[in-house]
Amino acid sequence: MDIDLAELANSCGEWLRGSGPESDIVISSRIRLARNLADFPFISKASEQDRAQIEQILHAKIEAVRAAGLLPHEVHYLDVDQLEEIDRQFLVERHLISREHAESEGARGVLIDGGEQSSVMINEEDHLRIQVMHSGLDLESAWEQINQIDDLFEQQVNYAFSDKLGYLTACPTNTGTGLRVSVMLHLPALVITRQIDKVFRSLQKINLAVRGLYGEGSQAMGDFYQISNQITLGMSEQELTGKVADIVPVLLAYERQAREYLIRESQETLHDRVSRAYGILRTAQTISSEETLHLLSSVRMGVNLGLIGDVQIPTVNKLFVHTQPAHLQKLAGIELDSSDRNIQRATYLRRHLGGEVPPPATQN
Amino acid sequence: MDIDLAELANSCGEWLRGSGPESDIVISSRIRLARNLADFPFISKASEQDRAQIEQILHAKIEAVRAAGLLPHEVHYLDVDQLEEIDRQFLVERHLISREHAESEGARGVLIDGGEQSSVMINEEDHLRIQVMHSGLDLESAWEQINQIDDLFEQQVNYAFSDKLGYLTACPTNTGTGLRVSVMLHLPALVITRQIDKVFRSLQKINLAVRGLYGEGSQAMGDFYQISNQITLGMSEQELTGKVADIVPVLLAYERQAREYLIRESQETLHDRVSRAYGILRTAQTISSEETLHLLSSVRMGVNLGLIGDVQIPTVNKLFVHTQPAHLQKLAGIELDSSDRNIQRATYLRRHLGGEVPPPATQN
Repeated sequence: MDIDLAELANSCGEWLRGSGPESDIVISSRIRLARNLADFPFISKASEQDRAQIEQILHAKIEAVRAAGLLPHEVHYLDVDQLEEIDRQFLVERHLISREHAESEGARGVLIDGGEQSSVMINEEDHLRIQVMHSGLDLESAWEQINQIDDLFEQQVNYAFSDKLGYLTACPTNTGTGLRVSVMLHLPALVITRQIDKVFRSLQKINLAVRGLYGEGSQAMGDFYQISNQITLGMSEQELTGKVADIVPVLLAYERQAREYLIRESQETLHDRVSRAYGILRTAQTISSEETLHLLSSVRMGVNLGLIGDVQIPTVNKLFVHTQPAHLQKLAGIELDSSDRNIQRATYLRRHLGGEVPPPATQN
Repeated sequence: MDIDLAELANSCGEWLRGSGPESDIVISSRIRLARNLADFPFISKASEQDRAQIEQILHAKIEAVRAAGLLPHEVHYLDVDQLEEIDRQFLVERHLISREHAESEGARGVLIDGGEQSSVMINEEDHLRIQVMHSGLDLESAWEQINQIDDLFEQQVNYAFSDKLGYLTACPTNTGTGLRVSVMLHLPALVITRQIDKVFRSLQKINLAVRGLYGEGSQAMGDFYQISNQITLGMSEQELTGKVADIVPVLLAYERQAREYLIRESQETLHDRVSRAYGILRTAQTISSEETLHLLSSVRMGVNLGLIGDVQIPTVNKLFVHTQPAHLQKLAGIELDSSDRNIQRATYLRRHLGGEVPPPATQN
């Protein structure tokens, strides 16, 4: 029942496998549903006691469902309020809970499946936030999976629902389906060719939101962008999923065109950028999280374009996550200040990119 | 008799061996003598015909001396006026002729010994400029060698000499002994710790000049500095040599103290700088001459401090010279524009620093 977070740190979620469709550009497909219990006020209006009760009820339901063998994978429940700050941060880096869930207070928890495809946050902005994340472009099966999980809960509890509005949520932007469909894209060539802002303005015009690596308000580090629907009201789940799914091939085509342009017009510059990034990651003795993301982004593109042959995409994907502050500390088994983390990060990168192996002696 | 410059490009002068005393910091010890024929006007006043005659006479004397078996090594005479621009540039990069000698016009030549310890320029600023360059701190034996060469010439020709002033030279600053004593020092730690300007101001106060890698007016690239006497009048050759020789241990102590300080106070930062420099040199696909000097300087210090174990100082010294524009082109056997040179330079560096060998596959 208990989950060992240090062990989890060493492993690697399904979405990091990098084996899904279009995974050279699409990191992951993610769907989340916002749900609330009809018998309790929204979190923003709930008392401490309300929250504790909500957490108790939902946790008990989860155990009942688990006992009945209805949950697909091995699942773990974590009392987020009882976790150390570093463990909460770790779950954020792993995309298993939101930053808001980590930073808020009071009774709250999260259900995680062993494969890290799904998680259910209790007492985030809504009473229930169900999330499913698949590797690559795979919205359809993500939708099937989340729909099943939602059905399991709906059989157990009484959701706040209006025949006119649909599912009721704490924030009106989620009311209706309570659905957010998002894809995480790696768009380095659009960044290098300075087309990214133009692309984003177009997306905003059709009511799609663009966010960074860690959701709302986070910066687009490492050239990663989350594209998601802004509106949930007035459209069906299928229509909303389709709207995001339909735009992805267009973005893929833009990014691939930009990569082809770079290869054609400035192959040497591109190869140089990619190769140096790889060289620095393999030799740095101290390196910040920001520089690491920046360099790994170049390496990831380089691997996908065949400019780097001796490292695989799953390794690169894993390094993106494992070099984040909380992961580094979980993997090292000790708390580290920023300066020690930079040293630890460089050591970790060298070890995983073959950087500590000396080259053969040169002949003169 | 003829010298193959392409072959010379591939070889490596004595002063690059890096085996002389104090060679972690002292690259080379160099002495030059300025001499003029009594029967001809100084170069600045000489007609084209005068110059041609001077060149003829001195060249003939050289052949006579050579025929008599009096010259120490295998020697080569080059008609600098007949050389391609790239070959003249090559000799400058090799420190065998001065930039001024390469760029001037009219009859002029240079005598080079096969070990590249000595060279004699004809019709540079003076009729004769004799130079001896040894690896490391070795002014005494450099002085012995140049004194012998000077004596050989003095037996053959009538030098312009005044009992009151000593040897007469085109520029009054050289009149007297005609001697310039210089040491080339590698002072990266004094640059990093921002003490270099203070050191230079002290040197200027005692009438020592500081110049860059390629002499007068050249920038101090790669943290290399030439320290030399400014005045030659009123002191004996021994006193002048002693003046430079005496200051070198002081500068060595300063540089070593600065290195120890960096190791003690910011070992990680220093190691990081050195290691990244090495990583970039081993992976860049295109790189400028300036960046190369800058990075090689860090690597050189890193090797001397034991922070890099798999490359040797002679290799690094050779790369400093072989990655210069004319050397690169001589080594490649074709003329290259600046952009192609940058690619060629990166390829050369990777090949000689083991950068093309892929690391072992990483396990995930």
